[in-house]
Amino acid sequence: MTTTVITHIGSLVTNDPAVGDGSPLGLIRDAAVVIEDDKIAWVGPAGKAPAADETYDAQDRAVIPGFVDSHSHLVFAGDRTAEFNARMSGRGYSAGGIRTTVAATRAATDAELEANLLRHLHEARRQGTTTFETKSGYGLTVADEARALRIAAAHTEEVTYLGAHIVSPDYADDPAGYVDLVTGDMLAACAPYARWVDVFCEKGAFDGDQARAILTAGAAAGLIPRIHANQLGHGPGVQLAVELEAASADHCTHLTDADVDALGQAAATTVATLLPGAEFSTRAQWPDARRLIGAGATVALSTDCNPGSSYTSSMPFCIALAVRDMRMTPDEALWSATAGGARALRRTDVGTLTPGARADLALLDAPSHVHLAYRPGVPLVSAVWQRGVRAH
Amino acid sequence: MTTTVITHIGSLVTNDPAVGDGSPLGLIRDAAVVIEDDKIAWVGPAGKAPAADETYDAQDRAVIPGFVDSHSHLVFAGDRTAEFNARMSGRGYSAGGIRTTVAATRAATDAELEANLLRHLHEARRQGTTTFETKSGYGLTVADEARALRIAAAHTEEVTYLGAHIVSPDYADDPAGYVDLVTGDMLAACAPYARWVDVFCEKGAFDGDQARAILTAGAAAGLIPRIHANQLGHGPGVQLAVELEAASADHCTHLTDADVDALGQAAATTVATLLPGAEFSTRAQWPDARRLIGAGATVALSTDCNPGSSYTSSMPFCIALAVRDMRMTPDEALWSATAGGARALRRTDVGTLTPGARADLALLDAPSHVHLAYRPGVPLVSAVWQRGVRAH
Repeated sequence: MTTTVITHIGSLVTNDPAVGDGSPLGLIRDAAVVIEDDKIAWVGPAGKAPAADETYDAQDRAVIPGFVDSHSHLVFAGDRTAEFNARMSGRGYSAGGIRTTVAATRAATDAELEANLLRHLHEARRQGTTTFETKSGYGLTVADEARALRIAAAHTEEVTYLGAHIVSPDYADDPAGYVDLVTGDMLAACAPYARWVDVFCEKGAFDGDQARAILTAGAAAGLIPRIHANQLGHGPGVQLAVELEAASADHCTHLTDADVDALGQAAATTVATLLPGAEFSTRAQWPDARRLIGAGATVALSTDCNPGSSYTSSMPFCIALAVRDMRMTPDEALWSATAGGARALRRTDVGTLTPGARADLALLDAPSHVHLAYRPGVPLVSAVWQRGVRAH
Repeated sequence: MTTTVITHIGSLVTNDPAVGDGSPLGLIRDAAVVIEDDKIAWVGPAGKAPAADETYDAQDRAVIPGFVDSHSHLVFAGDRTAEFNARMSGRGYSAGGIRTTVAATRAATDAELEANLLRHLHEARRQGTTTFETKSGYGLTVADEARALRIAAAHTEEVTYLGAHIVSPDYADDPAGYVDLVTGDMLAACAPYARWVDVFCEKGAFDGDQARAILTAGAAAGLIPRIHANQLGHGPGVQLAVELEAASADHCTHLTDADVDALGQAAATTVATLLPGAEFSTRAQWPDARRLIGAGATVALSTDCNPGSSYTSSMPFCIALAVRDMRMTPDEALWSATAGGARALRRTDVGTLTPGARADLALLDAPSHVHLAYRPGVPLVSAVWQRGVRAH
């Protein structure tokens, strides 16, 4: 057993409303945290901290729970720089979109896919992310989807089967046949590696009935539903998420009043996960976070990191956007990027800094978490502990 | 004499249209750069690079000129977190605005001001900035303005006298008296430390006649004019900048057609410096970069780093905003953040990577400069050379 005390923390976010200032962030000023092996053993005022084997002086800077990034697409090969450049430069481009990435991913070796995944994971960790979910969805064959999930499962517990990202180009003339594959042989091959099943429920991808069939089949195979819902337009995704008790409805950009009410009523079950990096990189309409929060919905923030529509791994950047453009307060945004992400993954061991929680935390080069929005774009994460080990 | 070759550069931005692909960025694929002491000695295809004492392998990543941040306010004390938090949370706050920072700056010791300046400079350099301008303007007394410039001058050649930031609270009832001070004793005390004279020409700060008096007096004392112009509303700032052959008109958010035309015609003399961090952090209207570029204006990008309205030191973040929200192309934004900044400071030795230029350059953890916009918020600067010395 090894114990470490991080002391002289100017401002500690615990996400435990029972401690500190009593706010949802459970803020403690002049605080200390004691880590025992991979877990938090104690939090409280610095002056009352128990002795420990090792001491780390935070020099009055802020400590927050490590970010929980509950939505990413990191098993891929290639990039789409030319497509992005053309879109942002107002030039035409015969973009293959997701299909471009599917072709590159199928052509890559296992080692290449794993190296690319690890590169992005390390990049995210340097920015404070200690828990991340990632999906398949760029293979779209039984073998390619299963290998994506196998590679992901070696590096995170939060693995999502997204065979239903788009209809495979191989089934362009037979979408029903592709749904049969996704709910049949592909599911059977993928379920052993995954915890979650996901579907892109959107015009041009999968409609409500197809999405219900896919999520229901996934649930029967022991996977828990989550859903890409209402990103590009109104649609049945959010209602389906609530109906099927999905852990999360992701994107939530185009919502009717009924959608918002449903997410408010389902707050304990289905999280509304907002992904402002996607709106930033595609110049799309911002989700209305205030409307969701006003209705009582549980809101998570995540990067949606993927090479097409949101190629950022930066949770601090998403917080800055959420505050500036989605009108979340800095406190709400920090909660949603940590505790909110944990809710979206139905985890109680991460996203908070309370005794017994995983010792996943980030030290900021700033006196408070508000600086993540106040100082946009500045790399403020100066140290990261993951399961009690200094990882950056 | 020491020589270093940086080789296997996947994509090199030289900003020399005479080399490489002939574009304004002068892009060379599979390139090398040879540094001799503090200067660039050679650029060209990697296969033709001359031998050097030391070799650095860029591993197919991109190299760009170090950023030239031509507008910042870094001699200050305190911060304005509470004010920012209240503004972004929709709460009332009896903010003192610039006056809050003036009070904190006056109360700080020289050592505290210098330490704060250096902290921000090092932070900016880690993000690729190798040349920066900074201003006084939080002292507003003869002694406090002169000490701000003295401290700044120890760390950069680009020092700007901004006694005319706001009317000093000490002269609230006598703005004409304050202009007399700024053009008289304060100027005499400050001119030895500064290269530039600046004024905030805006309703609530200094009007056109006051601004003309201040810039003219500064010019008579050997300082070159630059001007905060047309940030919060229409006004005489841009026209005055062109009339006085100022090096730069900064902000340029609210422009008439006549203002845009004037900047187009003055492109060789007066740069339009856009500061998207300010619009981001105050939720203000974006400057219309396309309109300026269309009129032939020379456009620079800069951070405006200051604790009130734009507390970012990140040029990559400003590039991402310029592309997303001001509709610059990724190429234009990169040029404006390097060569454009150099033009705004009337420098020919920085902002380009050509033989004889200062060896100021940044290595990106990405295959191209486009990734600075394609991967928003991700800290992509992995190494920095300043005057030929590896500084990060």
